[in-house]
Parts: sequence; C-alpha cells; structure tokens
Amino acid sequence: MTRSVDQSVERWDIFEVVLNGPREGNPFVDVQVGATFRHKHRAIAVDGFYDGDGIYRVRFMPDTVGEWQYTTISNVAELDGQSGSFTCIAPGPGNHGPVHVYNTFHFTYADGTPYISVGTTCYAWVHQTEQLQQQTLATLQNAPFNKMRMCVFPKHYPYNQNEPALHPYLEGAEGARDFNRPNPAFFRHFERCVLDLQRLGIEADIILFHPYDRWGYATMTPDENRRYLRYLVARLAAYRNIWWSMANEYDFMLKTIPLELWDELFQTVQQRDPYEHPRSIHQAHLDYDYTKPWVTHASVQKWDVIRSKAWRSQYQKPLVNDEPEYEGNIPYIWGNISARELVHRFWVMFADGTYGGHGETYLHPEDILWWSKGGVLHGESPARIAFLRRILEEAPAGGLTPMEDAWFWPRISGSSNGNYRLIYFGAHQPKQWSEGLPTEGRYHVDVIDTWEMTITPLAGTYEGKTTLTLPGKPHLALRIRPAE
Amino acid sequence: MTRSVDQSVERWDIFEVVLNGPREGNPFVDVQVGATFRHKHRAIAVDGFYDGDGIYRVRFMPDTVGEWQYTTISNVAELDGQSGSFTCIAPGPGNHGPVHVYNTFHFTYADGTPYISVGTTCYAWVHQTEQLQQQTLATLQNAPFNKMRMCVFPKHYPYNQNEPALHPYLEGAEGARDFNRPNPAFFRHFERCVLDLQRLGIEADIILFHPYDRWGYATMTPDENRRYLRYLVARLAAYRNIWWSMANEYDFMLKTIPLELWDELFQTVQQRDPYEHPRSIHQAHLDYDYTKPWVTHASVQKWDVIRSKAWRSQYQKPLVNDEPEYEGNIPYIWGNISARELVHRFWVMFADGTYGGHGETYLHPEDILWWSKGGVLHGESPARIAFLRRILEEAPAGGLTPMEDAWFWPRISGSSNGNYRLIYFGAHQPKQWSEGLPTEGRYHVDVIDTWEMTITPLAGTYEGKTTLTLPGKPHLALRIRPAE
Repeated sequence: MTRSVDQSVERWDIFEVVLNGPREGNPFVDVQVGATFRHKHRAIAVDGFYDGDGIYRVRFMPDTVGEWQYTTISNVAELDGQSGSFTCIAPGPGNHGPVHVYNTFHFTYADGTPYISVGTTCYAWVHQTEQLQQQTLATLQNAPFNKMRMCVFPKHYPYNQNEPALHPYLEGAEGARDFNRPNPAFFRHFERCVLDLQRLGIEADIILFHPYDRWGYATMTPDENRRYLRYLVARLAAYRNIWWSMANEYDFMLKTIPLELWDELFQTVQQRDPYEHPRSIHQAHLDYDYTKPWVTHASVQKWDVIRSKAWRSQYQKPLVNDEPEYEGNIPYIWGNISARELVHRFWVMFADGTYGGHGETYLHPEDILWWSKGGVLHGESPARIAFLRRILEEAPAGGLTPMEDAWFWPRISGSSNGNYRLIYFGAHQPKQWSEGLPTEGRYHVDVIDTWEMTITPLAGTYEGKTTLTLPGKPHLALRIRPAE
Repeated sequence: MTRSVDQSVERWDIFEVVLNGPREGNPFVDVQVGATFRHKHRAIAVDGFYDGDGIYRVRFMPDTVGEWQYTTISNVAELDGQSGSFTCIAPGPGNHGPVHVYNTFHFTYADGTPYISVGTTCYAWVHQTEQLQQQTLATLQNAPFNKMRMCVFPKHYPYNQNEPALHPYLEGAEGARDFNRPNPAFFRHFERCVLDLQRLGIEADIILFHPYDRWGYATMTPDENRRYLRYLVARLAAYRNIWWSMANEYDFMLKTIPLELWDELFQTVQQRDPYEHPRSIHQAHLDYDYTKPWVTHASVQKWDVIRSKAWRSQYQKPLVNDEPEYEGNIPYIWGNISARELVHRFWVMFADGTYGGHGETYLHPEDILWWSKGGVLHGESPARIAFLRRILEEAPAGGLTPMEDAWFWPRISGSSNGNYRLIYFGAHQPKQWSEGLPTEGRYHVDVIDTWEMTITPLAGTYEGKTTLTLPGKPHLALRIRPAE
C-alpha cells in the first residue's frame, strides 16, 4: 500500500513512496525494498529503507518534468509489486537542482546556474543541542558559504567531548552500539538538517567516515560499513543538495579500512546513488588518487595553496581545498592562521581556478568552535570571503582557467575566461604591470583591495598589451573585463 | 727585485711581493709568475699577476703567526727565484680572518667568531660614479648586511643601462674589448671596493660571470674564461673577505658555458685559490648540483622559502638563499614583494637554520635601484633584518638545527642549539603553544614581534613540557634560552 499517489513533485524535489511492512526480526537487515521509476524510455532503480515502526520508504528525486510511474520490488511480499505514478512539475524559485561537475574543473547546478563552491566546516553541528543548531543555521543565513562539511557520526576530539543527543545506531548489548540497527530518529533529524541547509542554498557535504571516535563507528566491520552506506544512500540520495565525502582523513583509518576497501566503498556509493552526487574523499597526509573513475572531484587538505594550479592539473578534476588551514588561534597548526592569511589563501585558490573551504577555530570558554560545533562566527575572514564570492559570481559562466604561460605564474595567481581575467598578487606589490592582460580587444581594469573590500576602476579603457599603473600595495587583485 | 721584505703583516692581511719585469709583448698572456710561501713544514704555491707598467705582484694571505719565507717562480728570468721573508703577527681589532664553512650547515670566521651571513645585493655598484659608490658605502655602514653580492663585469639590464666608468678589459680593435688585456686600473678600483667592504665587516661575494651583457663578457671563449679566472684569483684571493660566486643565473649562459665547463671553471677557482674561500654558483631555474665536491655552500634563488629545511637537508651544506625575491615595486615578480613579506621570509630562512640575502628594487626617477647600483635604502625591511641579525648573534655558537620531528614543522619554522630554541610562527597565531620546547631543564621564553621589533619576556621560567600562553597575533617568534 502506498500513501503517495497522484502527487505533483517539483523537479529535483523528493517523491516518497511510503509502505507498511513487517516489524518482526530485524527489518534493517532482513528486508530489502526498492522501486523502479520510469519516465518514457528511462527506468531508474532506487533503494528504499526501513524507517522503524513498520514503515518503509523509497525516495526518488525526478530530474525530468512529466509523468513518472514506479513499481516496488522487495524480498517481502507485502512490499513487492506496489505501483503508482506522479507528475514532476517545474522547479520553484531557488531550486536549481543538484550540483554536478562542469567543464572539467568546475561545478554547475543542474539547471545551468554556475555553482561557485565556497565551503565551510562544522563537523559535528548536527550532534549539538537544538539551540546551538538553530544558532548555527541563523549564522549561516548571513554567511557566504554554500557548502557545509558535516559528519554523520559524532566526533570525539579535543574541544569535542560532548555526547551526541542522538546516535546514528541504536544501543545494543552492554551499552555498545548495535551496528545492525540504525536509529531512525537520528536520521530523521539528520535529514531535517540537510533540508535546513537546502533552504539556505547550502550543499551538505556529508562525511561518511572519520577516525575521531570513541563509540565504535570508526571500527565497524566491512559488512557493517557496506550496510551503513546502502542505508545512508537510500535515505539521503534523493536530497538534491547532498555531496558524498567518503571520509575526513581516510588515511588515519587504513588499519580498519585499507585502500582496497575504500575503493570498494566508494564504488558502492557510486552504484547505489542514481543521481551521481559529487563524490570525493579527504586526506590528512596521504593523497588519495583522485584520478580514479569513481571520484568526481579532489577534496583536499593542503596548506601550501600556491601549488593549487599544479594539483588541479594533476587530477584533471575540480580541486576543492576544504582545509587550507583554519582561521583561529588554537595550538594546532592547522587551526591557527590569521584572518588575513586565510583570505590570502582564498584569493590564491579561487584566482587559480580552484575552490576552497573555510573553517574557524578560535578558543572558546565553552569549547564552541565553529569548525566542529557551529554557533556564531568570530573571525574576520567571512566578510572578505563573501566579497570574493560576489566577484566570482559576477565572472562569466564556465569557470576560470589558470594562466600558466610564463615562469612567474607559479608565484602569483591569475586565471582567465576569454578576455575576463582575475589576477591576484598576494605579497607582491608591483607599481607597474603588463602581464596576463588580453592581447586584443578593449577592456576595463578594476583594482581590488582584497582585505579592505574595495573595487576601484582604473580610469578609461585599455586595449591589448599595455602597462598599468597600480597602487604598489600588497594583497591587491586585478579584474579585467571586456569593454563592450 | 722585491720591494716588500722584512715586513710585518697581520694574520689574514696581505703580504705583497712586487716585482719589476718585462713590459713588451703581452705580459698578461706571455708571463707566468708566482711564488711559494713557506712556514715550517708548509709550502703554499700562489699565483701572481701583471699589474701593468712593468709591475708584477704576488699576493699572499698568511694564516699562521710566525716567520714566512717565499721564493718566486716565473718563465721570465728576472721574475724567477726572488726570495724574501716576512713576519706574520697577530690580527688587529676587527680582523677575524676569512669565512669558512662550519658545522656542516653554518659559517665561521677563521678566528672562531661565528659568521651569521646576512647578505645584500648591489650587482653593479662598483661600476657607478664615485659619488654613488661613496653613498653606497655610507649606507652600508648603517645597514645590517655582512655580505655583498657584486659583479666583476658590468651589467646590462633594465634600470642598468649606463656605461661603466672602467672596464675590466682594455679596449681592443674596433672598440671591442680585448679579452687578452685586463685593465689594471679597473682591478685596482675593484680591490679598493673589496677593501672598503672589508673595513665595514662585509664579505664581498664576487660574481665571476653573469648573462646580462652587451660588451662580450658573457660570450668569452673557454680559454679567455680560464685566463680571466686565473687573473682574478691571483689578484683577489689574498683579500680575506672575498667569496667566489661562479655566476649569477649560470643557467642562462649554458650555450656559451655548458655544464661541463662550469664544473671545470669551478675547479679552476678551487685549485688556484690557496685559501679555500667559499665557493658557490647561483641559479635561475635550473638548480646546480650543490653536492659536487668543489661547492662549499648552496647559493640559491628560491622564493618558496618555507622549503628551506628540505633544500638544506638535500645538499648537506650551508644554504644561502641570496634571492628570496626583493623588497620593491618593479613589475618583475622577483622584485616586488612587500617589506613585510621579505621580513617574513628572512625569519623563515634563519629560524630554519639557513641563511638569506636582501635586495631592494623600488622604482626610482633616475633608475638608482639598490639591487643594482647601490645608493640609499628606501625600504622597511633592513631595520627588521638588523633586529633579526642581533637576535641570531646572541644565539649560541655552532648554528641552529631545524626541528623536523613532527608533521607540522614543514608549515612553521623552528630550530635549536641545545636548549636554545628559535620558533617562528609566520601567519600562524596560536594563543597556546607547547611544541618544540626543551624536554628538560629550566628555560626563559621571549615573545618576539618580528615587525614591531619588540622582545617581551614571558614572566618567570619554565621547565620541560609546558603550555605557553601567547598573544595570538601573526608574525611572532619565540626565543627559548636556558635559565642558568
């Protein structure tokens, strides 16, 4: 019996088939359920999941406007062979669909709107008090970030010692987690968080595994890991704003998940997700081979951002440096760079045609550090990152290609899209400049102060090779735009 | 006939044998002259040179107090077999002798005084007007530099278009230089410059070849190059404050001096110089193999100074980064970093147990840029470099060894000498810190603001592993000193 029939669903929203089925035994393990969704010549197989209390759900995100039919399939008779239909209608305002790789090194929403990935990190925000979660969402509403790195599993780490309100798995014998019994209440909450982000225009970059654990999540067996992934993908893949991050710092977990198993789990996600959400994995010291075919983009942790162009070139995929170190003042070297340095690194990354993520780690009397728990932002970088994002969103669609045709480009940052150019000088402060300019056509030049957030047009227009007179201050950028 | 007999000469000063000989033909090419200097069991062969006007000179820098004898040797009878003696006496104030490599990665004066190499660059200062040269020397008197990179040959380059007052070679047919006839007037002047630097406590890092030329110096034949080096070494080796830099940017001259010839010329200098003055070669893009046995230290041009430790480790010799880019505002990327950036790079280099050099390239209405012509300094880095030099000179003798025992040391700089520690945080701003501290013994901690040039002791003393509370600002350093 299906509850959802003859509904209208927005393109890239969720159509959900709800079924009643057995409660006995362990339905999480014993029952397989899914459905095939059909539109014209297409048939898409989708996994369903058990949501507790005898409720089974199959979620589907239609990508095409029109009529869709479905038929369920299950190893349990009462869940098998149910069928129905729905109408997929045009997306409403703010619904641009899921994000995909575009033009080799960039991203786009499914509706063709460019997606300039400007991420942040609150690893364990879903595991905090409701009040703190609401504060985090309120902060995000006025922040420049459109991607959030967040863990499914709770985190055990310095400044992160609190027990989560809800666990992803139910308690089993002797207080340990029972990795055969996911906790539907947790996942319903997690899904609400994903939707909360979606409403704010934020992609949820969901971290599937991480090593910082005291509950056993980091040492589940290979079979438990496989079942966990299938359950998670069945629940979440239909949310248009999700990305899959196989791990934070996978290389600290190689004892329990060796490289071959990472590869396999990666492919499990690829195979079970019908929508090809972005997939990557995040390293600490040992780079994953991002050229592997199941990886859509390189999600790296790299402090030495001046080499971004080289990594991009090496992987031939979008480069998203999710941890170019964080603004903050904690003792850890990855968490104590100045706001000015993080803003500098953002300009280097983005002006070289790559993407970067923010994090904030200021010591706090109650250990509420944004990077882990969310809350409010204390730093000076977010306003500058917002300024940078606006500039990037005004750039022509299709993304920026780094300039690499001269010996000095490894030392400064610059990229182009036709006669549009973005050049960032960092600590360099030339008073005269003639490199990287369009060789033909008239153009405008803006001088951008990346810290003061000012854009000062140079008077008039220029044509071809010329010598610009600049202020001779550090941390300036040039924006070149064709003069129509 | 010798003019100088029965003289007293300070240890590491110059004893000069002056001989009258033939003027006819081309004595520069036709006449070989030299002498053997003897002290007890030692015999040191030294080349002499023709100084024009029938005057031949053999110069010698005695390294041992006591009686020395010499006998000349020549292919010309009247210059052969002359003998005499002199007394080498203790060095006077300020005479520490020549600089040599010490403790693998560091330098020392011959008398055991540590030499902390803090260089600067005025490539063509000896080729400017007398007035400008005097201004350069006056500037150096109040500057923090104790090594000067300077070319023998004049330089042809942007901002360096003026004809030199004196040429190293005499004019030959059709206005071209005659590379068989050195110009004694030039070399006498050059030697005066070397002595002027010596009086200021500055090592003359003499650049023997460079590619920036319109007179033919960069395209001399191999034989001309060999003769030039023998002449130069014969004239200059006895000056205690000279270093040999085979080239500036040797890799731009590989068409006329291929790598094998560089190796040979290097060894020529090594063999003709009885004093083993420091020898290196400076690259643009293609690193020379500084592990070759005739190289005493690596004189590099590297902007990415955070990797200094790695290069030091690779070469197992002192690393002197003579061009970590220059403070300035010219269009060239190597010549337009901010003062703050150059000061930052100096702290990185020195706090990692390596050495660095300064240069300044601010646009000037008359093209008088310090890096090439000397004159006055306009920048803000020299005062901070002086501050750094004083701190290094207060460090214990023997030099600093980089700390590399933890994953984060590639990102920040730190080095030790026993329980003395120098840690530089760069853009990092921890408020709490416990890494790199002595594991036993009591110590003092100073917080150094590298830009404001303040040294603020933390109250009291500390013992073993502890957590320091710091200001949480960027560009600070810590100095740890044992508490006696």
